[in-house]
Amino acid sequence: MTSTQENGSGDAGRARSALKNGHHVSAPSRKTLTLDTMNANVKVMEYAVRGPLVIRAGEIETELKNGAKKPFKDVIRANIGDCHAMGQVPISFIRQVMCLCFNPELFQSPDFASDVKEHARRILDSCRGSSVGSYTDSTGLDVVRHDVAEFIRRRDGGIPSNPENIILTAGASEGIKSILKLMNQDQDGKRPGVMVPIPQYPLYSATIAEYGMEQIGYFLDEDKNWALDIADLKRAITEARRHCNPSVIVVINPGNPTGQVLTEDNIRAVIRFAQEEGLFIMADEVYQDNIYAPGSKFHSFKRVQAEMGAPFNTVELASFYSTSKGFMGECGIRGAYMELINLDAQVMAMLKKMLSAKLCPTTAGQACIDCVVNPPREGEPSYESFQAEKQGVLKSLAERAKIVTDNFNSIPGIHCNVVQGAMYAFPRLDLPQGLIDKAKSLGQEPDFYYALHLLESTGICIVPGSGFGQKPGTYHFRTTILPPADLLKTMMDRFKAFHVSFIQSFQK
Amino acid sequence: MTSTQENGSGDAGRARSALKNGHHVSAPSRKTLTLDTMNANVKVMEYAVRGPLVIRAGEIETELKNGAKKPFKDVIRANIGDCHAMGQVPISFIRQVMCLCFNPELFQSPDFASDVKEHARRILDSCRGSSVGSYTDSTGLDVVRHDVAEFIRRRDGGIPSNPENIILTAGASEGIKSILKLMNQDQDGKRPGVMVPIPQYPLYSATIAEYGMEQIGYFLDEDKNWALDIADLKRAITEARRHCNPSVIVVINPGNPTGQVLTEDNIRAVIRFAQEEGLFIMADEVYQDNIYAPGSKFHSFKRVQAEMGAPFNTVELASFYSTSKGFMGECGIRGAYMELINLDAQVMAMLKKMLSAKLCPTTAGQACIDCVVNPPREGEPSYESFQAEKQGVLKSLAERAKIVTDNFNSIPGIHCNVVQGAMYAFPRLDLPQGLIDKAKSLGQEPDFYYALHLLESTGICIVPGSGFGQKPGTYHFRTTILPPADLLKTMMDRFKAFHVSFIQSFQK
Repeated sequence: MTSTQENGSGDAGRARSALKNGHHVSAPSRKTLTLDTMNANVKVMEYAVRGPLVIRAGEIETELKNGAKKPFKDVIRANIGDCHAMGQVPISFIRQVMCLCFNPELFQSPDFASDVKEHARRILDSCRGSSVGSYTDSTGLDVVRHDVAEFIRRRDGGIPSNPENIILTAGASEGIKSILKLMNQDQDGKRPGVMVPIPQYPLYSATIAEYGMEQIGYFLDEDKNWALDIADLKRAITEARRHCNPSVIVVINPGNPTGQVLTEDNIRAVIRFAQEEGLFIMADEVYQDNIYAPGSKFHSFKRVQAEMGAPFNTVELASFYSTSKGFMGECGIRGAYMELINLDAQVMAMLKKMLSAKLCPTTAGQACIDCVVNPPREGEPSYESFQAEKQGVLKSLAERAKIVTDNFNSIPGIHCNVVQGAMYAFPRLDLPQGLIDKAKSLGQEPDFYYALHLLESTGICIVPGSGFGQKPGTYHFRTTILPPADLLKTMMDRFKAFHVSFIQSFQK
Repeated sequence: MTSTQENGSGDAGRARSALKNGHHVSAPSRKTLTLDTMNANVKVMEYAVRGPLVIRAGEIETELKNGAKKPFKDVIRANIGDCHAMGQVPISFIRQVMCLCFNPELFQSPDFASDVKEHARRILDSCRGSSVGSYTDSTGLDVVRHDVAEFIRRRDGGIPSNPENIILTAGASEGIKSILKLMNQDQDGKRPGVMVPIPQYPLYSATIAEYGMEQIGYFLDEDKNWALDIADLKRAITEARRHCNPSVIVVINPGNPTGQVLTEDNIRAVIRFAQEEGLFIMADEVYQDNIYAPGSKFHSFKRVQAEMGAPFNTVELASFYSTSKGFMGECGIRGAYMELINLDAQVMAMLKKMLSAKLCPTTAGQACIDCVVNPPREGEPSYESFQAEKQGVLKSLAERAKIVTDNFNSIPGIHCNVVQGAMYAFPRLDLPQGLIDKAKSLGQEPDFYYALHLLESTGICIVPGSGFGQKPGTYHFRTTILPPADLLKTMMDRFKAFHVSFIQSFQK
């Protein structure tokens, strides 16, 4: 099909008129890449945290911006663990160091404290050409990996950490995916099996689907504040061995979406189980700074495993930490590390080779994680304000964790375990049979149906429990605890009003 | 194995003494993850740009630092296209905008020009919570994608670009891998085939290996300055169809490692071939700013395809661009975009869903690419210095391209095509049979053997041609053109002296 000469002559004119808004207007063509020919695994993978409900929330925001009248003025995005999006303020020291790294002219400025300058100088001196624009080693800047190792050593009561076992990644997701990739090999015609908690953070289910691995769910015990239940781990692995080769167990502590902080006993039991069953442990510990409930304490898998002695201290372990959570909330920057314990040396070499083709993680994230693991020390100029900002954020998160828990428990038909840590609540909903039937008639999960109506009626965007997994016949949702206190109050009021009236509408 | 009580009592003591430098000292244990059980594809993938030669270069640097005596004082890393590592200075405007994005307090400072502030403000206003610490949309900040679309439209003489077809990625490698992943599906029991140039940038071969796809090499014609030879494309695809399902053709323009800038005729011929054969085109155009030779001009695949009209304008096309090259050299930051033309709408939705689980590319890279595609305009305060800095870098690169070409051609036994663009030369070596036999007796590729001796004798680190692919029976190496002029002179002198003497040593 050719166009008229209206928009100019010759090739350029034909090209311009053949394109409307960047889309070629031409005869229907046979595509090479279609739903039928594309990667089948990618078709089935899902990621509810940014799924259809969230897409709808974005549409509603646009509708509101265009003047649509709704029962609410704003969408409240309680779907994703993004602190800054909810108004949390970055830690000054971190941003000052980063800004010096990017614009070293500012070393001349009197407006930056000496410890900020020293910290930035140290990072830049380890960059080739003293520039954050240079590629770094694929595992990350040497000095940052040393700082991470020292951070871990301090955290774990003196147990040494080897910088050669530390790999920096652009966000924990990248590290997690790389380990699962390594494990992705069929044995004796059986696919590798990955044990994941139900409920789990859906990066795991998405990656397992993407890679064509087998997902082996183990139920967390809602009645025991989402503790891991060894009996259920055994049930799950026994069934799984019939059709796949279980090789790794994922534990998320503090829990996402469930918000529990595992006891040391629980962690020991998991390590013992992993050792008996020959499993590699992936310990997603990105929320380790987010501990709120009295009596709750973070116990690192590494320390617990080391203290258990042989043979438990030989279990292969990957621990993940990130700049996205904690008191920093620097999600967009993409900074993280993973520590790999007891990895076969040849496998480690293969992993590092695999990572080399990606070149390196963003230097912005590397500088950021360096500030987190090597913060100002007592006596240094930025120490007081750093601590004040940090404690301020953590205190506020703890308060909001309680507000959310208490408010949900005050709503008849909603049951919320104590949010001991992380950034979410995962309350259980009592849904009337009428609602369940209605949802199913529309081909929707009942909690999806509930969440959609919540969004359309109140502007509150949460993620249905079906996006995370749950015991069959139960319904939940995940909300963050992140909206600032006054917005949180508004949100809880709206939520309660919606819930009471919506549930009532299904009762005769 | 338990330890003594030397280092303290109880669990912590046992843990500390059981660990030496972070390695557990315990009974040999059965690992879950070994070379035998790990992902077999990862075992075979290679990435020569950071391969064994480069690892050896790092060791030599350490040896020098520890006082070892060698015939040279410094390693010259000419293995990787990293401009800042070689002393190139960042573009001021880019770093100023980025630093304001990270530390908005500086909006109060009189030291930043108004256009810097406006640019940073625009980026921050599009970030949730006005913070670069927030996650962005998974395809990247809306405003940046719009700026990219406008950049492309200007570049291509007014042909529109749709921001919905633009996806930001953390470096071009990420985008490239995501497209290959989409294409990774067997059809009728045959693996998907990816046509790649020989020689090629080994991200492609590494990813093809990692994903278990088939690599279909097509030879570039060294005698025609590395032009694509349609006859050879046809040869390659005909052979390939017997055992795989060719679905994509990769073209790197300007070329890496080969440094050619394709003529418009050559590009049209490739597009015609792709249309006839039902291939998806991946146009790696990251070096589009790096055009040096008189008579050479960058022609974007998108524009050429559009101007060819139907049916050629319906060919599926992905074009890649990055902040790592050009005049910016911001490799470490990881900024890039891909534009997707004629992608099936449902496949596009699947791609965006797949990317959503990674959350988003680093905001640092997004801010950086925004400065590149939306630079200061004439009349704005930063315009003059921006243009001066940009032209300065490009002029210097052009000069060094010529120095490298001319110097290599002055060495008997080395033949170097004109470096028309990009950042590399890929000279051909005449190697004596004695050297070839010696190398083979050691199980090494002859050009690897040559490169290793070059490194050990002169400290010059280049990458052997076998790492990129080459016509059988020919030997090459890739060097960058990046060492600054005086170091480049030193490097070329050392290289010549080494070559003459090393080659002579094999001649009776």
